[in-house]
Amino acid sequence: MYKKIASLGIVAGLLFSGMQVDFSEAQAKKAEVNGQQKQGKVKNVIYMIPDGYNSGYATNYRWYKGEESSFDPHVKGLIKTHSADTEVTDSAAAGTAMATGEKTNNGMIGVTPDGEEVNSILDAAESSQKSTGLVATSTITHATPAVFGASVLSRDDESSIAPQYFENGVDVLLGGGRDYFISKDEGGKQEGDNLIEKAKKDGYQYVMDKDELKSADGEKILGLFADDAMAPEMEREGTKEPSLAEMTNTAIDTLKQNKQGFFLMVEGSQIDWAGHAHDPAWAMSDSQAFDKAVEAALEFAEKDGNTLVVVAGDHETGGMSVGANGEYDLNIDVLHDVTATGDTMASALDKEKSNVKDVVKKYTSIDLSDEEVERIKEAQEPAIAINEVVSDRALIGWTSTVHTGTDLPVYAYGPKSEMFSGLLDNTDLPKLMAEAMKIKLN
Amino acid sequence: MYKKIASLGIVAGLLFSGMQVDFSEAQAKKAEVNGQQKQGKVKNVIYMIPDGYNSGYATNYRWYKGEESSFDPHVKGLIKTHSADTEVTDSAAAGTAMATGEKTNNGMIGVTPDGEEVNSILDAAESSQKSTGLVATSTITHATPAVFGASVLSRDDESSIAPQYFENGVDVLLGGGRDYFISKDEGGKQEGDNLIEKAKKDGYQYVMDKDELKSADGEKILGLFADDAMAPEMEREGTKEPSLAEMTNTAIDTLKQNKQGFFLMVEGSQIDWAGHAHDPAWAMSDSQAFDKAVEAALEFAEKDGNTLVVVAGDHETGGMSVGANGEYDLNIDVLHDVTATGDTMASALDKEKSNVKDVVKKYTSIDLSDEEVERIKEAQEPAIAINEVVSDRALIGWTSTVHTGTDLPVYAYGPKSEMFSGLLDNTDLPKLMAEAMKIKLN
Repeated sequence: MYKKIASLGIVAGLLFSGMQVDFSEAQAKKAEVNGQQKQGKVKNVIYMIPDGYNSGYATNYRWYKGEESSFDPHVKGLIKTHSADTEVTDSAAAGTAMATGEKTNNGMIGVTPDGEEVNSILDAAESSQKSTGLVATSTITHATPAVFGASVLSRDDESSIAPQYFENGVDVLLGGGRDYFISKDEGGKQEGDNLIEKAKKDGYQYVMDKDELKSADGEKILGLFADDAMAPEMEREGTKEPSLAEMTNTAIDTLKQNKQGFFLMVEGSQIDWAGHAHDPAWAMSDSQAFDKAVEAALEFAEKDGNTLVVVAGDHETGGMSVGANGEYDLNIDVLHDVTATGDTMASALDKEKSNVKDVVKKYTSIDLSDEEVERIKEAQEPAIAINEVVSDRALIGWTSTVHTGTDLPVYAYGPKSEMFSGLLDNTDLPKLMAEAMKIKLN
Repeated sequence: MYKKIASLGIVAGLLFSGMQVDFSEAQAKKAEVNGQQKQGKVKNVIYMIPDGYNSGYATNYRWYKGEESSFDPHVKGLIKTHSADTEVTDSAAAGTAMATGEKTNNGMIGVTPDGEEVNSILDAAESSQKSTGLVATSTITHATPAVFGASVLSRDDESSIAPQYFENGVDVLLGGGRDYFISKDEGGKQEGDNLIEKAKKDGYQYVMDKDELKSADGEKILGLFADDAMAPEMEREGTKEPSLAEMTNTAIDTLKQNKQGFFLMVEGSQIDWAGHAHDPAWAMSDSQAFDKAVEAALEFAEKDGNTLVVVAGDHETGGMSVGANGEYDLNIDVLHDVTATGDTMASALDKEKSNVKDVVKKYTSIDLSDEEVERIKEAQEPAIAINEVVSDRALIGWTSTVHTGTDLPVYAYGPKSEMFSGLLDNTDLPKLMAEAMKIKLN
């Protein structure tokens, strides 16, 4: 405890020394940045969505990283997140609002509550001859990317989402979900279109792993790196999958060749899944992968001068808190020793869960108490129980296994970034982007 | 459920119709406000602190109220809240940071971790011949007001805090805590100074209830409306206590007479206590009392033109979430029927808690299920158990009975309000206020 507090002092010193040592310098730098931002035009927009991330995640992640995230300094305001039918949105309705400017019911993709199709900011960019791209660590046909390039009544209909991406002319598609591009019958045999072969014929370069992505040089790229979702960041080592930052860099390098500019959406998909599972180590390591992707986008935007980067979660997941259980403390360091998700640990348990102590020790370095062992053994969902034991050790609290409805921070960098100040609705984001790019959303 | 959803549609329509119907008008208005803000000078600062309030409380409160709070539209950025010794601050350390610009350890008031006294923004205003005031619904000697007008090693030493207010020349003191101004021996007899009599001799007008406050016309006012804390807002009716808005209005009317300007701190003290007790109805009704106080401050600032209003919580309390327990929903309406705090209900229980159904029905209109009755009967702390039953009905979650460490929104209105944009540390707030008023903090 005392050791931790001492090291915290040092971390706090590092975090805030800039502002404390020379406050006016920071102010001057800020003014300079603002000045620069006012001069540039918005040719490109990079829309970065950390699924499930609010200020609780942001604060926990800052302690986990030991310093501010790449986007922390660019916070501009807050967004409201409710859907058309409830105060607590799902990713389909939230994404539809953030992509099209229209509220819809939970579960619906790119349509109004009445089922009417609506244009997204990606469609609007397409219509203005800009190049477009979608990047995610989920299946690329999952709710959040889907709302930008497809319209379907139900988010579960991922096989109907895939072909729409090509009909809508999305130039770069990078993520998981190979299975949804090749329709199969129940026996696993291909039936109907193989969208991958079709895409190749239509001029897409198809890549399947990190190395192929690295050397990709097509004008249009389809990168599918897993049959279903990609690996959680902390389990990516040993796979051939690229990182979110690597996918972001390739997407930018490909799209920037269009002189009319581009629109790119990048999702940190699995932060949300970690929240559903109450898995704080997964949440933090995937937040780190997302942070590095934003860093890549900001580096490009800084050099380019005509790129607006907007970062905003779509909803909070799990009701994650910074500190919990009646203690004025946080032990985030616990999470640095965790090397697998609770799901992975649970699947390594034998039928009687007799090896729970060994499994948890192997993947978290935690020596479980007898009480903790019992708690996991008795749990209906051992993965969540393991994650909650780790959460309690880290002093991170949770209130739900689904989303919560709190306002979320919105961050923006680049020309016109000041437009994203104040209290906004999630539907304002695509409207403001369209206004910034001087294109029509609908 | 369907009824609720239908009414939600209407509420949502009301909430966002302005922005949706005429987006550019809202933008134009914003620019106009900003223009006005740039022209004024900062003669006065009103610092409004909703103790325990973060974006979770803000979102729940917006649904509770049915529209935006008076300060919602003025959100500018986020503040970090950790103390010198832990990631999860208490109100003493948070207040010290927010009043003096110096981080200290939890529990300490207006001193560095080494015990060295530091000046507050109130002291700095005093030194610049401005008038000063403190308003709270707790004892006026409680941690948050204390950090502005006193320096003590422990927040519990409220009897040492009271005399320092007079030594430091605070002109208006309004709140609870009469007991700390008259030191008594164990038998309840007065011993030592009666600070109230002393204050009267020193020119303070002393008021004890709502009516006396209303007709107060002194240059200096001491208003003590309860022996200990004032009543929770939902139990204030029937007492002679003024509302937080009424205290704020009198404080402003008194202080504004100084041509050199003034500094006023107003705390919504009990939002935090509600959070500790997991009492969502208390949290929302005291948020409403605070909202009305901010409304009063904003009305004055709008007319005055030279007043900066800053609103920021000191920390989050309880890990309150918007939605909970695996449901994509919020039933905030439950809280409108609650007329007493869980503490009041618990104190109305008989020894065997046999009357729990009647008590809860009387104060909440809720018909408890047998399971809920058992839960309250078996609880070690029946007040918290009652509050958690109400919370579950409202779908509001909690993770701790103390504070949490998440970043908090900062709101600002008036000249120089743009200075409060971005990611700030809580220590930046008094520094920026001093800079805005062109006075020296230390």
